[in-house]
Amino acid sequence: MKRTVFFVSDRTGITAEMLGQSLISQFDDLAPERQSLPFIDSVEKAEAAVATINLAGRAEGQRPLVFSTLVADDTRAILQRANALVLDFFQVFISPLETELGLKSSHTAGRSHGMQRASDYNRRIDAVNYALSHDDGVSNRGLDDADVILVGISRSGKTPTSLYLALQCGIRCANYPLIPEDLDKMRLPGKLHHYRGKVWGLTIRPDRLHQIRSERRPDSDYASLGNCRREVMSAETLMQTHGVAYFDSTNRSIEELATVILQQAGLERHLF
Amino acid sequence: MKRTVFFVSDRTGITAEMLGQSLISQFDDLAPERQSLPFIDSVEKAEAAVATINLAGRAEGQRPLVFSTLVADDTRAILQRANALVLDFFQVFISPLETELGLKSSHTAGRSHGMQRASDYNRRIDAVNYALSHDDGVSNRGLDDADVILVGISRSGKTPTSLYLALQCGIRCANYPLIPEDLDKMRLPGKLHHYRGKVWGLTIRPDRLHQIRSERRPDSDYASLGNCRREVMSAETLMQTHGVAYFDSTNRSIEELATVILQQAGLERHLF
Repeated sequence: MKRTVFFVSDRTGITAEMLGQSLISQFDDLAPERQSLPFIDSVEKAEAAVATINLAGRAEGQRPLVFSTLVADDTRAILQRANALVLDFFQVFISPLETELGLKSSHTAGRSHGMQRASDYNRRIDAVNYALSHDDGVSNRGLDDADVILVGISRSGKTPTSLYLALQCGIRCANYPLIPEDLDKMRLPGKLHHYRGKVWGLTIRPDRLHQIRSERRPDSDYASLGNCRREVMSAETLMQTHGVAYFDSTNRSIEELATVILQQAGLERHLF
Repeated sequence: MKRTVFFVSDRTGITAEMLGQSLISQFDDLAPERQSLPFIDSVEKAEAAVATINLAGRAEGQRPLVFSTLVADDTRAILQRANALVLDFFQVFISPLETELGLKSSHTAGRSHGMQRASDYNRRIDAVNYALSHDDGVSNRGLDDADVILVGISRSGKTPTSLYLALQCGIRCANYPLIPEDLDKMRLPGKLHHYRGKVWGLTIRPDRLHQIRSERRPDSDYASLGNCRREVMSAETLMQTHGVAYFDSTNRSIEELATVILQQAGLERHLF
């Protein structure tokens, strides 16, 4: 049974997609076509969007679902005329907020995911550059500036988590691999013992690690289940010895890892 | 006037924060304290969250604002008892969806930003690795596998955009700098002329480029306004000559750049 879901927004549509997707995922049997209609910032574009939505509805013989984060009154009024279930995020929430706050909202488009103040933008780019220049232990300099330092064995999830913390949270994150030599000597790499208050570890289930490493280097000792088991066990012992709290990346998404690290470190996500 | 805004979620709280932030940004004079309460996945944690919210309300002498994406009925019922304006995202939208679809929702927590199917996860990690190994023209191999190839002069925004496309959209994106030699010879770097269908350009306003480059290398020829003007003009001419459509990163956020590129390239954002 085909039914298209539209995400309509005056800017990127990211909030609308996230919102809609989290609701749709509550219905197990629903696997709809998704279509994003971003940058709907004029009456003409809103009318074109309605035409697109109505066309899909006629072709499929049932009303499309529409998740909208449109803010401007004129475009929202047009979208409401679509022959669809239009879930208007702004309409539902802005009125109780205005009442509670005793303020009128500005009804101005593009406040989310638009161009922010230069200081926000610089913070984000700075964090990305920091993560790239401190990825995989490439630099021992500038660790005083790190908000978070991640350690873990190869393929435990350090790089994606560091990049996510930088790009999506504005957090300066360095990451260091725990290499076999560190594991043999039961030591933290480089000068990390000076920074223990901001060092966090990642670990992973050996069978999952074996699977990931095998994709990169099949049939290697590096990827063998035995070696993965030994490395994971040594790394966890090392982290325990040095008082480094660690999180298992096996069943956590990058977002979940980032959130637990921020929570434990007492840091707030910077929204962009 | 202090008033705390809480983002309550059974998982990461990212949707709640994004949602709440986009509503709050509609009120110009509101600069509230923000506090995220993620992983509220039990009755006990929901009760603790209510205590935290009520405490803030008493300290500030007015009701906090609460944006909730809780899904489970028991935790939602507890949160509703907080002495706050509780905006319950799930409650508002799920009922019209159930009616429209003729289905009952699963009311299961953690469907967003949680661990996805392994294929989704692999796609994401693969895209991140691809972006890192094809950043700044470091490799000419594997370009057949690219979804998008970005070109632009130094500091026009290629790396953050590539990483964003990888991490947040699952898109394999390579990026190549347009260096002075390319500009002199009016040529695309490397073998990019073979891939023109998926090459997109970034440009930037010379004064903004001057500002950004000056932070890295103050008083250099590289950063001088004259050189920035020349490079931008040459690069735009080069891209026009080779039929490469380009976007101005000066007043666009990373999200907006990614969205216009996806839209022009006919690619869908992969949600994680």
